[in-house]
Amino acid sequence: MNANHLPLFEDVDVIQVGARNMQNFELLKELGKTKKTILLKRGLANTFKELLMSAEYIMSEGNENVILCERGIRTFETYTRNTLDLSAVCALHELTHLPVVVDPSHATGRADYVKPMAMAATACGADGIMIEVHNNPAKALCDGAQSVTPDQFDDIMSRIKTIREVI
Amino acid sequence: MNANHLPLFEDVDVIQVGARNMQNFELLKELGKTKKTILLKRGLANTFKELLMSAEYIMSEGNENVILCERGIRTFETYTRNTLDLSAVCALHELTHLPVVVDPSHATGRADYVKPMAMAATACGADGIMIEVHNNPAKALCDGAQSVTPDQFDDIMSRIKTIREVI
Amino acid sequence: MNANHLPLFEDVDVIQVGARNMQNFELLKELGKTKKTILLKRGLANTFKELLMSAEYIMSEGNENVILCERGIRTFETYTRNTLDLSAVCALHELTHLPVVVDPSHATGRADYVKPMAMAATACGADGIMIEVHNNPAKALCDGAQSVTPDQFDDIMSRIKTIREVI
Amino acid sequence: MNANHLPLFEDVDVIQVGARNMQNFELLKELGKTKKTILLKRGLANTFKELLMSAEYIMSEGNENVILCERGIRTFETYTRNTLDLSAVCALHELTHLPVVVDPSHATGRADYVKPMAMAATACGADGIMIEVHNNPAKALCDGAQSVTPDQFDDIMSRIKTIREVI
Repeated sequence: MNANHLPLFEDVDVIQVGARNMQNFELLKELGKTKKTILLKRGLANTFKELLMSAEYIMSEGNENVILCERGIRTFETYTRNTLDLSAVCALHELTHLPVVVDPSHATGRADYVKPMAMAATACGADGIMIEVHNNPAKALCDGAQSVTPDQFDDIMSRIKTIREVI
Repeated sequence: MNANHLPLFEDVDVIQVGARNMQNFELLKELGKTKKTILLKRGLANTFKELLMSAEYIMSEGNENVILCERGIRTFETYTRNTLDLSAVCALHELTHLPVVVDPSHATGRADYVKPMAMAATACGADGIMIEVHNNPAKALCDGAQSVTPDQFDDIMSRIKTIREVI
Repeated sequence: MNANHLPLFEDVDVIQVGARNMQNFELLKELGKTKKTILLKRGLANTFKELLMSAEYIMSEGNENVILCERGIRTFETYTRNTLDLSAVCALHELTHLPVVVDPSHATGRADYVKPMAMAATACGADGIMIEVHNNPAKALCDGAQSVTPDQFDDIMSRIKTIREVI
Repeated sequence: MNANHLPLFEDVDVIQVGARNMQNFELLKELGKTKKTILLKRGLANTFKELLMSAEYIMSEGNENVILCERGIRTFETYTRNTLDLSAVCALHELTHLPVVVDPSHATGRADYVKPMAMAATACGADGIMIEVHNNPAKALCDGAQSVTPDQFDDIMSRIKTIREVI
């Protein structure tokens, strides 16, 4: 994605900036000139403060509709695709007023870890969860290994709702 | 700590192997000859599989009373003391039958993050939580910044209980 | 930098893709349509193989004039700005025919480490060295701490030449 | 290895503390009471300063014969066994008077990278190089993949000597 693609997103509600674009400052500035809500994903090797500085690139152009997203960082542990850093929820809530969303699908890379990690993210105060869903994960063109089925999604949602009620 | 200190622990219930001793194989083998429950903490740069191999050093000597503990790994992010890797709970439960405990105090290094991270650990299925408590954290000889007061501990416990009831 | 800036580079010989743009695939594809030599820097958390895949984005569009650049990766060690990974020279020479350049200035972030690291890079077979030079580092608008003076640069060059002659 | 094994080392000149024992403080203190030269290897996830603090554990007991050894750190890059951090040579020479040795065999895990990395280590001022040699690496009981033959070792030594003469 680059800034020239923006007209293609006219009728969408939220534009996602992927982890690899988190420090694509030219793109961030262009997104700051729109009024779209921007979902800004943390880069694989970027600190909380760098994530906030990238949000500043968007906001300083006038668009304050930014959602931050923790989606796992790159570490020495390769059993999971990335390492989901849930302390990011605490730290970002401390450092900013922006909403913080968690993506357990990309972080873990495994469908069977999505439910427990979505529940954990909810329990520590995430403002939203972003989950990859596919009606037939085995046939997905990409990211099938981390996709849950609609039935599994329903189950996750009901667990999340229960946790939200008690916290 | 080394194996010569073991007699000092005669009347304790659980012996903790700290993160820096996770691959002190001589010590692990000695602990395997006791009947004490061993709380084995994950090293700062050790994978899930290495943690299990360290547990094997203990169990292969005859002591199967091993509890695994996720206490944060070392990454590029230094805002928190370490990065708490809650996917460890899922992965270790998948790879072994051993109980998995989470230590949010050492992982985050910050008293105000202990509560949300303890709740998250509970929500994703941790078998136990290990929390640093001090009646006057400001005067603690060490680890004061990550210690909660007894009142805060009560509050955390009541939140954890509520979450355990619904999951 | 984004693809729209390309006309500004009409009369330069080499276009550098910075570490944060290594996976800006839209930009890479546009650069592949030019005939300029592209200096492609390794991202802060990108593997050797990912660096090569980014080079593929450029070359698959027809531009095979790609130089790879090791400029340090992000690790837990913060005494140096990044960790210069000189094994990259060996690995990339093994995996590809593309030339490999080393940037000790950005990697270490310290002017006094540039000379020994430039000598080391030469000794292990780097095809080029990229060094930040400033006639008055103390007054540099950016990156002064890692900039050497012209006199220091002369000294480094003479050392590098000597090493190249013997290897 | 633990402190009880020390009598076995009566007639050796140098005792090596492996990377996994770098923060085995009980062992370090016992070694400090001997007069042996101690080769202290940097832990896989330990900073320069932590390495120096471990050296202090030895020296504060009266034994100042400590050699520091850079042997690679654990990062996200798994193409090499570890990431050899040659800036350690510069940093440790700046921070201490202790000699600094480099182990390219364990760091890279590959016999064909040992020669260029040994040359690089020499060029940036390492006080010594530690190389794994085996007369038949294919039959080595361990670490064969990173072992060079005596002939290869001779070749490496002659290259190192040439570089030392010119720097």
